[in-house]
Amino acid sequence: MTPDPIPPTIEWSDGHVRIIDQRRLPGELVFLDIATVEDLCDAISTLAVRGAPALGVAGAMGVALAAVTGADVREAAAHIVATRPTAVNLAWGVERALAAADPVAEAQRLAAEDVARNRSLGAYGAELLPDGARVYTHCNAGALACVGYGTALGVVRAAHEVGRRPTCWVGETRPALQGARLTAWELDRLGIPATLVADVMAGSLMASGDVDCVVVGADRIAANGDVANKVGTYGLAVLARHHGVPLYVAAPTSTVDLACPTGAGIPIERRPTREVTELAGARIAPDGMEAENRAFDVTPAELVSAIVTEQGVATAPYGPALAALVAEAQG
Amino acid sequence: MTPDPIPPTIEWSDGHVRIIDQRRLPGELVFLDIATVEDLCDAISTLAVRGAPALGVAGAMGVALAAVTGADVREAAAHIVATRPTAVNLAWGVERALAAADPVAEAQRLAAEDVARNRSLGAYGAELLPDGARVYTHCNAGALACVGYGTALGVVRAAHEVGRRPTCWVGETRPALQGARLTAWELDRLGIPATLVADVMAGSLMASGDVDCVVVGADRIAANGDVANKVGTYGLAVLARHHGVPLYVAAPTSTVDLACPTGAGIPIERRPTREVTELAGARIAPDGMEAENRAFDVTPAELVSAIVTEQGVATAPYGPALAALVAEAQG
Repeated sequence: MTPDPIPPTIEWSDGHVRIIDQRRLPGELVFLDIATVEDLCDAISTLAVRGAPALGVAGAMGVALAAVTGADVREAAAHIVATRPTAVNLAWGVERALAAADPVAEAQRLAAEDVARNRSLGAYGAELLPDGARVYTHCNAGALACVGYGTALGVVRAAHEVGRRPTCWVGETRPALQGARLTAWELDRLGIPATLVADVMAGSLMASGDVDCVVVGADRIAANGDVANKVGTYGLAVLARHHGVPLYVAAPTSTVDLACPTGAGIPIERRPTREVTELAGARIAPDGMEAENRAFDVTPAELVSAIVTEQGVATAPYGPALAALVAEAQG
Repeated sequence: MTPDPIPPTIEWSDGHVRIIDQRRLPGELVFLDIATVEDLCDAISTLAVRGAPALGVAGAMGVALAAVTGADVREAAAHIVATRPTAVNLAWGVERALAAADPVAEAQRLAAEDVARNRSLGAYGAELLPDGARVYTHCNAGALACVGYGTALGVVRAAHEVGRRPTCWVGETRPALQGARLTAWELDRLGIPATLVADVMAGSLMASGDVDCVVVGADRIAANGDVANKVGTYGLAVLARHHGVPLYVAAPTSTVDLACPTGAGIPIERRPTREVTELAGARIAPDGMEAENRAFDVTPAELVSAIVTEQGVATAPYGPALAALVAEAQG
């Protein structure tokens, strides 16, 4: 088996948390060693590490860091969970580590499970893609959003591995450009043909018949199947429905929040407006310009064609389907 | 009357064409004096001057430049028209100057008429906006897209002038950021409250009930009412329809191409892919990344709530309505 062309996004290494610093991609592949909860929270806030599944592991490793450095573990947990309100996996990982006798071992176990879960998810999802599928992707739900392999990109990768020759339209995903910077970098490393587009081109691509499906990740899935994901997902879902193009959501069952009945209950993070008024450090708007930066939006379940998890594929009605998959995962 | 806070985008000045160099906004307000057809074509290709109505005047002034510099006028005309294939106004302005006994006088006449036309268009359009309308704008269809006053922003401006207190959501409009750079700059100068957003946030804003209407310009309108405009307009139109939000197109009758039966006949310009892979000279995607950059898309007439011109407002069925308005304009 050839080595994975993408190193682990996050791992426990010699008493530290080692992450790929995603702020430096695609220009440089640089690792960051994090030794304190405060530095971990800063890395999460500034998107050095991001993506719902990766945040789950980061949450657990934060608790582990607090434990090994003798910090107040409960206080650290609260601090970590507050950094990003939308991705439910962060709280999930924190809680898993808090409940464990050995938080370090638990964090490492969650990290090890992540890749296996994503390979399983990918195999289920690949079945949904036609041969030669032209997949539209948004944000980054790849290896860099997890420990490895990826969720939405894991579906594409699994299809690629079994010879189905998928290609990707990569939406650049303003404001933070996770598509242009991260998804494009991953697909290049994996040898999967990809074409970058400005987000506004999605409608034109669907109208010209150049998109076979949209595959996205999720930051939180409500019990009824409503999906919070990177802002812009909802617009893609409306466009996909208008054109009869399926929209698939790929996420581990840890992203499903059964305590949240509908998407209306999911908190939507507002991020700094300079992500909008600046681009790659350069100011692109007049001084003093007001901006609004909702980091996520909610796609109602009725616009979702299927939700792909490591336990299998859920379709409408999502309430019972998701509850069953979560129960299986908790085995 | 207070002086216009935005100087003319393009004017004939002492045997030259003087334009605002829009590549330098919003950082600096710099004028560029253009003395040759070749330099004018370069300014058009690189978006130093852009916007369908402004391109109409630029086309006429290009023919005037050829005439005063003793260049081959027919060859110059062909060269100018080839710079940007989608905006029909460019060819319209060139033809008007070619048909005139004095191309310089004709170009100046078209420039003078532009502001009056846009004020008339704005007054018609303002009637469509409710009091306190929250208007979503895309690209720049303001003074900078014309000689002055603007088309889509002319509608907002006219509503502002009669005390209807409109506010704007300004979609930044990747890849060339005409919203963030130009529309934001104009609205700031005009004192109209505005909030910049990434293009992907439009769906979230409509879903949360924060958009009363979308007002856009047009680069070419087919005889049946199909509208070619900046890429992303079509996605906004689909979202607007999904949410019951009206979408208004504001354009002078010179943008209507009665020779083009439907949008399928409108050529869609592909622009350099580095507009997508780079920003302000900084590379934002991996080296060697493929990109596609369709500069425009086509919104079918059935998604357009009304087309606002200087002659009045057209509604469906657009075929007879547009033909009548064009006939009135040709008087």
